[in-house]
Amino acid sequence: MKNFKNYIEKNKSRFINELFELLRIPSVSAKSEHDSDVRSAAELIKKHFIKLSLDNCEICETNGHPIVYGEKLINTKLPTILVYGHYDVQPVDPIDLWDQDPFNPYIKKTEIHPEGAIFARGACDDKGQMFMHLKALEVMIENGDLPCNVKFMIEGEEEVGSDNLAEFVKNNNEKLKNDVILISDTGMIAKDIPSITTGLRGLSYVEVEVTGPNRDLHSGIYGGAVANPINVLAKMIASLHDENNYITIPGFYDKVENLSNKEREEMAKAPFSLEDYKAALKINAVYGEKGYSTNERNSIRPTLDVNGIWGGYTGEGAKTVIASKAYAKISMRLVPNQDCHEITSLFKAHFENIAPEGVTVVVKPHHGGQGYVTPIDNIGYKAASMAYRDTFGKSPIPQRGGGSIPIVALFEKELKSKTILMGFGLDSDAIHSPNEHFGLFNYFKGIETIPLFYKYFTELQSNL
Amino acid sequence: MKNFKNYIEKNKSRFINELFELLRIPSVSAKSEHDSDVRSAAELIKKHFIKLSLDNCEICETNGHPIVYGEKLINTKLPTILVYGHYDVQPVDPIDLWDQDPFNPYIKKTEIHPEGAIFARGACDDKGQMFMHLKALEVMIENGDLPCNVKFMIEGEEEVGSDNLAEFVKNNNEKLKNDVILISDTGMIAKDIPSITTGLRGLSYVEVEVTGPNRDLHSGIYGGAVANPINVLAKMIASLHDENNYITIPGFYDKVENLSNKEREEMAKAPFSLEDYKAALKINAVYGEKGYSTNERNSIRPTLDVNGIWGGYTGEGAKTVIASKAYAKISMRLVPNQDCHEITSLFKAHFENIAPEGVTVVVKPHHGGQGYVTPIDNIGYKAASMAYRDTFGKSPIPQRGGGSIPIVALFEKELKSKTILMGFGLDSDAIHSPNEHFGLFNYFKGIETIPLFYKYFTELQSNL
Repeated sequence: MKNFKNYIEKNKSRFINELFELLRIPSVSAKSEHDSDVRSAAELIKKHFIKLSLDNCEICETNGHPIVYGEKLINTKLPTILVYGHYDVQPVDPIDLWDQDPFNPYIKKTEIHPEGAIFARGACDDKGQMFMHLKALEVMIENGDLPCNVKFMIEGEEEVGSDNLAEFVKNNNEKLKNDVILISDTGMIAKDIPSITTGLRGLSYVEVEVTGPNRDLHSGIYGGAVANPINVLAKMIASLHDENNYITIPGFYDKVENLSNKEREEMAKAPFSLEDYKAALKINAVYGEKGYSTNERNSIRPTLDVNGIWGGYTGEGAKTVIASKAYAKISMRLVPNQDCHEITSLFKAHFENIAPEGVTVVVKPHHGGQGYVTPIDNIGYKAASMAYRDTFGKSPIPQRGGGSIPIVALFEKELKSKTILMGFGLDSDAIHSPNEHFGLFNYFKGIETIPLFYKYFTELQSNL
Repeated sequence: MKNFKNYIEKNKSRFINELFELLRIPSVSAKSEHDSDVRSAAELIKKHFIKLSLDNCEICETNGHPIVYGEKLINTKLPTILVYGHYDVQPVDPIDLWDQDPFNPYIKKTEIHPEGAIFARGACDDKGQMFMHLKALEVMIENGDLPCNVKFMIEGEEEVGSDNLAEFVKNNNEKLKNDVILISDTGMIAKDIPSITTGLRGLSYVEVEVTGPNRDLHSGIYGGAVANPINVLAKMIASLHDENNYITIPGFYDKVENLSNKEREEMAKAPFSLEDYKAALKINAVYGEKGYSTNERNSIRPTLDVNGIWGGYTGEGAKTVIASKAYAKISMRLVPNQDCHEITSLFKAHFENIAPEGVTVVVKPHHGGQGYVTPIDNIGYKAASMAYRDTFGKSPIPQRGGGSIPIVALFEKELKSKTILMGFGLDSDAIHSPNEHFGLFNYFKGIETIPLFYKYFTELQSNL
């Protein structure tokens, strides 16, 4: 692997520049005004596939944003790795909290990243992490040392629920056939503590609309005499948690997997400083479901959060109005065994049920996704563990992630293969937030570690 | 008065066109981008004063938007009426709910106004109602029949709290000296039921900011583990009312004037159809403080309403974010004896007190104003009553208004005179809302009734 390290070292600045080119494209999948940018990002990925001399390179059309596919099949007797990633990014709002243009990437040193980090929307999630796989493949190919077959499937709708990818996967079982799926779209515990995500939460995401009077009203003339949709919405949202921060939706917890005390004890061994956690977020206290630790609350427990709320007058100064309508976007993170469709239905029924007289309520489901757990005794996990041990000098810690990659559960169902989540991001990377960034250390560590996964996975698979 | 009626009839279309010219100016006082428009409106008012040959016409500078002053003093022995109104208007948001450009006035027939109504922001509040006074004065002057002295003071900051008018009034006691203050900035019960507003509610208006983590967070990684400012804000807002819709701020009701059963019985005699009320607003139920009727809730009882709320992702699609900050604009309507400054302090103390750990709360007061009650046995009320009787064929009903004209309490304190609120608007005029309008019937009825007030007030005052 000495050759690999030399090659990476020699090409470092190009590897950065090529990622910058991709980061400059504002491929925000949630906003239709960026549709052409999303396509440009797909085209750039395809260009890279072609440069790597992948076969069957294709921009696969869907009902939404396209999927970019390419493969290098060197020997049918060797195992096949399917790499998944996404080239779309989250919206940039609130734009005024960014230090610089989110689509003009730059490198800045931070306390955690003294060697510098790349700042841009998508730097970590997922352009940066996905691009590590392209560069890792380049390293193997250029050094004549690709040990197995590889397929790449990079989509453009991960941030909006991967609806069309699901369809694509269902219709392309044979094309996508593989022995293991490899994804870098998660994080690790700390820069010096590699970890592999073994569980992901599912997601139910809804938008609610509360309508009171048929028009905005003067709060002096009508105030106190009609249901105010904003006050009602606040009351309805408040009632979704009880005084112990349990979610009050009937049936919500029915299928929640309860971990044994032993499992919880194992989890509690992961290094974690509550004081550092609070200091990093500048909060004086954490907050959450009674009876669970912070690391349990954000991984093995389901949660409900309002992601956005709006209604009435939100401009400068004062306006004495009672709004006709109030809105909120609400998401629930789900744990294994909770079905996202069932939870969405339970939410809808409950939210409509608690609406007081004088208002009407509409609940509109956005995307959802099932949770997922990977066992740590399969050879994919073992290969990843060995790869990390080589590059970080220590074995990675298995951890449950709080986020969701809805497609992972579907992969298992449709493609019958396990997914290995080799994440190189850090919680402090501010993904989905202003000033998202990705450490140069992490970027290059990823490029260095991935080829080792290929190597060990091929070896372990051959020994089966 | 026959001459007056003829003169009005002959000049109807000019009276409409002149008002249209004023309505075309987007004099939104709350938005600094409209500062020059606000000034243009002031200049147009001054031009009308000069055309009416008023004396000492002046655009009086303040720390904010200017006040336009003019007077016609014909005889120091005769009484003096001070007319107050405002040329500024409410913001137009939500602009997409307007049928047409809010600053391009047009006439349209409605069910309530088969003879047509003027649609524009400010058509009723208060450009239309204020302009009636200019035209009524023209009617009297042009017919050589102005019975007393008159002073006009038209301001540009009513919709943002009249802060600088207060200063102006305090510093110009002598200049503004009068026997009665006349304002048309309220409504009447129905087109065929004239009424005089004898009480106004006070106002306390605050903006609150809830800050949780120091940046927006990914809801998958942090969801359930940190206080979500939007959820917290919803909970705090919800807690401001109890299950009977009483306001829970300690001390809030301490000074509330409680009406006697007899007074409440009198109030209950005003014609009111709950079914029509609900039908007009397209709501299936009213909502409010237990133990009070709709008309009591919006007039003699204090209330608390959220006028605007915002935080997190509010754009198209879904974004799984926990916002760093959430905001709301909250106003309280106050009844006589509740001091607006004291209530603002009580709110601030309470809201800061109920903030849970993990968030910080900032409460920023906007404008406020004291409530007001006019006795119905003074000659101003009597003169107004006689004027309405002449033009409507029936005596007006005294009513408590739910809205606030914060300056009225100050007028009494500083100028030692009573204010008569001769409102010609209707609740259905949609003031502060999209598609604000003012009936042509009401506009011309006002121009016809106002000179009669001058006449009767001068007669009653001379007989004192």
